[in-house]
Amino acid sequence: MLRVCIIGGSGHYRYVLEGLDKRARLVGFAPGSDGEDIGKLKAALADNKLDATQYEDWQTMLDICQPDIVAINCHFGDHGLLNIDSLKRGLHVFSEKPVATTLGELATLRAAHAASGKCFSAMFGIRYKPWFLTAHEAVKAGRIGEIRLMQAQKSYKLGTRPAFFATRGTYGGTIPWVGSHAVDWVRWLSGEEFKSVFATQSTRHNQHNGQLEVSAQCQFTLGKEICASVSIDYLRPATANSHDDDRIRIVGTEGVLEVREKNVLLIDAKTPGVQTLAQSPEKSIFSEFIDEVLGTGKCMVSADDAFAVTQASLLARQSADESKLLSFV
Amino acid sequence: MLRVCIIGGSGHYRYVLEGLDKRARLVGFAPGSDGEDIGKLKAALADNKLDATQYEDWQTMLDICQPDIVAINCHFGDHGLLNIDSLKRGLHVFSEKPVATTLGELATLRAAHAASGKCFSAMFGIRYKPWFLTAHEAVKAGRIGEIRLMQAQKSYKLGTRPAFFATRGTYGGTIPWVGSHAVDWVRWLSGEEFKSVFATQSTRHNQHNGQLEVSAQCQFTLGKEICASVSIDYLRPATANSHDDDRIRIVGTEGVLEVREKNVLLIDAKTPGVQTLAQSPEKSIFSEFIDEVLGTGKCMVSADDAFAVTQASLLARQSADESKLLSFV
Repeated sequence: MLRVCIIGGSGHYRYVLEGLDKRARLVGFAPGSDGEDIGKLKAALADNKLDATQYEDWQTMLDICQPDIVAINCHFGDHGLLNIDSLKRGLHVFSEKPVATTLGELATLRAAHAASGKCFSAMFGIRYKPWFLTAHEAVKAGRIGEIRLMQAQKSYKLGTRPAFFATRGTYGGTIPWVGSHAVDWVRWLSGEEFKSVFATQSTRHNQHNGQLEVSAQCQFTLGKEICASVSIDYLRPATANSHDDDRIRIVGTEGVLEVREKNVLLIDAKTPGVQTLAQSPEKSIFSEFIDEVLGTGKCMVSADDAFAVTQASLLARQSADESKLLSFV
Repeated sequence: MLRVCIIGGSGHYRYVLEGLDKRARLVGFAPGSDGEDIGKLKAALADNKLDATQYEDWQTMLDICQPDIVAINCHFGDHGLLNIDSLKRGLHVFSEKPVATTLGELATLRAAHAASGKCFSAMFGIRYKPWFLTAHEAVKAGRIGEIRLMQAQKSYKLGTRPAFFATRGTYGGTIPWVGSHAVDWVRWLSGEEFKSVFATQSTRHNQHNGQLEVSAQCQFTLGKEICASVSIDYLRPATANSHDDDRIRIVGTEGVLEVREKNVLLIDAKTPGVQTLAQSPEKSIFSEFIDEVLGTGKCMVSADDAFAVTQASLLARQSADESKLLSFV
């Protein structure tokens, strides 16, 4: 049975808890960042009746537990360092996104992964929601023809954020944290690589959250002259009926497909009006990651996906920081 | 009674026909561009039982008819020249947008208008639709607080376009022609001026329409670090239930307002869930223009609005042509 450790409780450790099955056992957990609060993770483990050992220090934990897989979701600014360290230890790594928060760290991480021969994936788990799986299937089946234009949206309630969100060094920025999901959808659904990005962001009206950007937009160009806008905000009213308002509209030569309010809406060239597509069942990203580790399958979010989307998000952040159009090399 | 002439039949002359009342009478019409087909205009006049004289040449018509108001909607590349000429003749001008298709012509037009003391407006008639009027009222009433982010969309069916759409010189480009409506909404609803734009466009899959761009996106920054994306396409399937799919989403500090499928949807900080706002009645842009000419009121689309939005659209087109971030001066 595979041995799993969780480092940190600041991200989507729930993907791990939901994906654990008889092939893998959680053996230990520890904070991954200075002063990280892992109280919610601890409570979630208790709720799920998962009996794992708590460690004060992740390095000690890895030394003692000798896990096969480590899931990393500490303060986002530490993801890169811990990912690199874990790969060098010969562990399979399931990382919260962004998988690094500087381009230099990302380059080191890519090299560490290439040298390791180990599995690596990132928590782009929204792909596995029925509405996104269904959108992907419809696009790949050619139901909208050749993609020409995409508009993606992430909108979150701000609520009360942990203190580490207020500092770029520990948080990494809103484009990499919130926006990278939408950056991932754009690349995954189009099947094209990024060519250039111009982005903008603002910290105004951030409710005293320091350097946290509450609004941002990115304009990507991909292969085949596909354009893709990504809109990001933390301004969804507290009164709204869900935490997030994830959307994408994909315009192709033979139709238009939208994901909105968990529906998949299609206008194609054959059928009058708007069709609401029947949805494929949800899947588990961590369960797929176990498949990949065991060699019995592939995780839909590959290491290359994780690296390319992180690079795109970091270049978008740099574009916004410098107010400059940036090309991908 | 005011005397009105229409030059050209390639744009939204219907605004004039719908706005005519006992204060104004249509006296003449003529093509405005070489080889312009005004057959549809002629048929519309007959349908509306409007008895006006047809002229072969717009200059002859203006000399003979001596109108008070001229409405111009010929091939878009000729708008600037005809607007300038008409203002110099001392006429009030109601122009199709874009009101010019080069920045040089626009500067000459601004000067001609300033020197003329005459009324000038552009056919940004979508503002007058109940859903946009209602959105504007809600925003101005402060129902979403301070605006931070906007996403506007224009999506049209391509259908069969006249030949002049296939050449930049006569057409002017898709960002100025289709996109300028959305550029207008962004400026009008935010009440802020543009600071910079990065835009992209593509002619791929344009169904043999020469230089016509069928997809484009613009990323604007306005005052107060407001970001606004504008997405434009001619890819709406022929099977869709309307010609266009106009939308805007406006995210503020106190709520989110959307115009979509002719509805105005509001999530504010006070009321749980999504509210569908009751809509104000439609108004007539040309009727308001007559008010302005008579001094009994103001047209909601001012000359400054027309010039600023045209400038922004032309700068966006230039940004896309040159793949360069451009600042407004």
